[in-house]
Amino acid sequence: MRIELVNTGTELLLGDTINTNAAWIGQRLAALGLEVSRQTIVPDGRAVFEGIEEAARRSGVVLVTGGLGPTNDDVSRECTAELLGLPLELNAGVMQWLSDYFGKRGKPVNEASRRQAMVPRGARVLENPFGTAPGLHMPAGLGAERGLHAHIFLLPGPPRELKPMMENLVEPILRGMIPDGDTRAALYLKCTGIGESDIVERIQAGLEQIGGLELGYCIGKGDVDVRLSGHRDLVEQGARLVRERMGNFIVSEDRRVIEEVVVALLRERKQWVSTAESCTGGFLVNRLTDVSGSSEVLAEGFVTYANGAKQKLLGVLPETLAMNGAVSEAVVREMAEGCLRTAGADHALAATGVAGPTGGTPDRPVGTVWVAIASRGGPTEARKLFFPGARDRFKLLTSQAALEMLRRRLLGISVE
Amino acid sequence: MRIELVNTGTELLLGDTINTNAAWIGQRLAALGLEVSRQTIVPDGRAVFEGIEEAARRSGVVLVTGGLGPTNDDVSRECTAELLGLPLELNAGVMQWLSDYFGKRGKPVNEASRRQAMVPRGARVLENPFGTAPGLHMPAGLGAERGLHAHIFLLPGPPRELKPMMENLVEPILRGMIPDGDTRAALYLKCTGIGESDIVERIQAGLEQIGGLELGYCIGKGDVDVRLSGHRDLVEQGARLVRERMGNFIVSEDRRVIEEVVVALLRERKQWVSTAESCTGGFLVNRLTDVSGSSEVLAEGFVTYANGAKQKLLGVLPETLAMNGAVSEAVVREMAEGCLRTAGADHALAATGVAGPTGGTPDRPVGTVWVAIASRGGPTEARKLFFPGARDRFKLLTSQAALEMLRRRLLGISVE
Repeated sequence: MRIELVNTGTELLLGDTINTNAAWIGQRLAALGLEVSRQTIVPDGRAVFEGIEEAARRSGVVLVTGGLGPTNDDVSRECTAELLGLPLELNAGVMQWLSDYFGKRGKPVNEASRRQAMVPRGARVLENPFGTAPGLHMPAGLGAERGLHAHIFLLPGPPRELKPMMENLVEPILRGMIPDGDTRAALYLKCTGIGESDIVERIQAGLEQIGGLELGYCIGKGDVDVRLSGHRDLVEQGARLVRERMGNFIVSEDRRVIEEVVVALLRERKQWVSTAESCTGGFLVNRLTDVSGSSEVLAEGFVTYANGAKQKLLGVLPETLAMNGAVSEAVVREMAEGCLRTAGADHALAATGVAGPTGGTPDRPVGTVWVAIASRGGPTEARKLFFPGARDRFKLLTSQAALEMLRRRLLGISVE
Repeated sequence: MRIELVNTGTELLLGDTINTNAAWIGQRLAALGLEVSRQTIVPDGRAVFEGIEEAARRSGVVLVTGGLGPTNDDVSRECTAELLGLPLELNAGVMQWLSDYFGKRGKPVNEASRRQAMVPRGARVLENPFGTAPGLHMPAGLGAERGLHAHIFLLPGPPRELKPMMENLVEPILRGMIPDGDTRAALYLKCTGIGESDIVERIQAGLEQIGGLELGYCIGKGDVDVRLSGHRDLVEQGARLVRERMGNFIVSEDRRVIEEVVVALLRERKQWVSTAESCTGGFLVNRLTDVSGSSEVLAEGFVTYANGAKQKLLGVLPETLAMNGAVSEAVVREMAEGCLRTAGADHALAATGVAGPTGGTPDRPVGTVWVAIASRGGPTEARKLFFPGARDRFKLLTSQAALEMLRRRLLGISVE
């Protein structure tokens, strides 16, 4: 089954909006064992007709995003009806939905919005609970007279409308079109603390022995998703192999990132964490506070760039700084232990390093970093790492390493 | 001049990589007054040939990204040579560059890498100082025998290689192709603290009076770029109008974001800032420390979610918390003033609010936030704002408002 994706919107071509929908749809389809053969962006207006026609001549399924709104340059609906030779008819159900939607806001349905209730004859309406424009599914048979045999799906452009429609309405239809649709499953095993090539070395050969299992790697922010898809029994067989070989490197099997996992573990245990950051400059604590509910587990967060701040706020000794320098095992240990003490937390994470681009020395080049964890009633552990490269990547990987130390401590497993 | 963009790479279709190159190129071309008519992603392999051929039949300029590497599925070079009927010849200059590149790393140039030195006869080599694969420019004449009249540019996929090549080598060639290329300019006036629709209302009608000036709006992270392009005299004329009407809302005219502007202003003045964050959870301080050199201006950063932490670290009075609640003007003022005092800084920023999704009350719904600035020898100012919606957006807009208060204080202009 050949699938094409047509994204409509002049703003995408001008670069005012990054086309994140394409990647997201690609991932969703890959999990179904389907691949996008081509993706095209066409500007609003007549080019939409050409884009959809070309894709429909080449492919069995065409997913179109955008161009369903009320403005004049939103023409996906009209272009598709014309292409397939179908009249547009006012749909009573959609009209009722629009009346309710605008009624709640004290407005009538104006002429422009009314266009959104027009449906090509024979098309199926895909309800959109998060916006005014419904999606539409034109089954393959509708275009037969014109020599077109593609299923055409028209979907809204805004991600918050597109994603639930894709997951709840479009994917079930696609599942029904593939022979093994009902028995298919997909699983993402998120690994951290180990590079992609090492993951490949540990699992790839073994997984390739499982005939029919599809395998993909998706590089995330400081982690790698191992994606298994295919018949659900094969996926489970593959997952057992990955669990056996990747063991404690697996952070989650439900796409949760490490900060979500760590906050959940802390909440379960009713424990508190604090942070003391030099080089990561708040990136670490910000990741924790990105998680809803983190206020129940985050005691205090400190950003201490200057040596004076490390002494005053964390109790790092001046002689430790003088003897070892700020980027050292001795200092990161005192930062973590001082943070634990002053914040009265159960765990404290600390990081000190050279984020760059300036500040490197021959024995402590840019990218050098120490991270440490201290816990009430547990040993303080420190690790030296090296992340040369851009500042944002340095912050990301350093915070990832610190969160991983905390995750392992919470689970009682040692750092590898 | 019709331009198409062809991005190659199976990883883009699988969604493992988001195609940020397309938006970036779209913005660069828009600044030249050029528009991408269509953008296509094709997977690695034979589909690259079809993708380039179709684009070259439709357009005068085809920009191709990716597929220049040493692996077997990198076929952009070979497909283009075949399409245009040009033999591939070993280029001595590129070969020398590869020998030097690998020599420095103690390796010979292997057979796979040697492919990167093959150049279609008549093509121009575009040097790539940041990678091993040079870009290639096939001028329009080369394909005339095959009925093709497009300029084809092959460019590397990795953004750190693509961007300098595009800016330094491709754009000058494109400028040469457009009648007013030498006299064209583009200017981005970055505005913050004011919504897009208000910006439009202030400037659009006036700018439309300047015939030949091109205008665009690019929504950024908490700011809006007003993009002016066209003849350099028109751009200057438009910029004067924007400066007059937008005044202090303009943060930069060189694409610097507000944290870069603020860190630069603090460095000039040799002043220090500290931060006290509740609801933004480190997002604010992390933005400051994203700027290289921020270690010279950031004194201390505090994340104080809990009331106890606000009292202990910032000296907020228990009775202030009890009487007003944590999300209040009185508390945010005490946070800022306490932070200023304890950190011994010149300026302190504070934020306290309800980030959500939980924690809202009828009189303080999710999205309610107070931000404040305190300065040595200056008045403390506080603002109440309301950013309902997703947590990441709440953090972004709240930190933007705080940085804007600091920018205005540093420049001695009042908050509007």
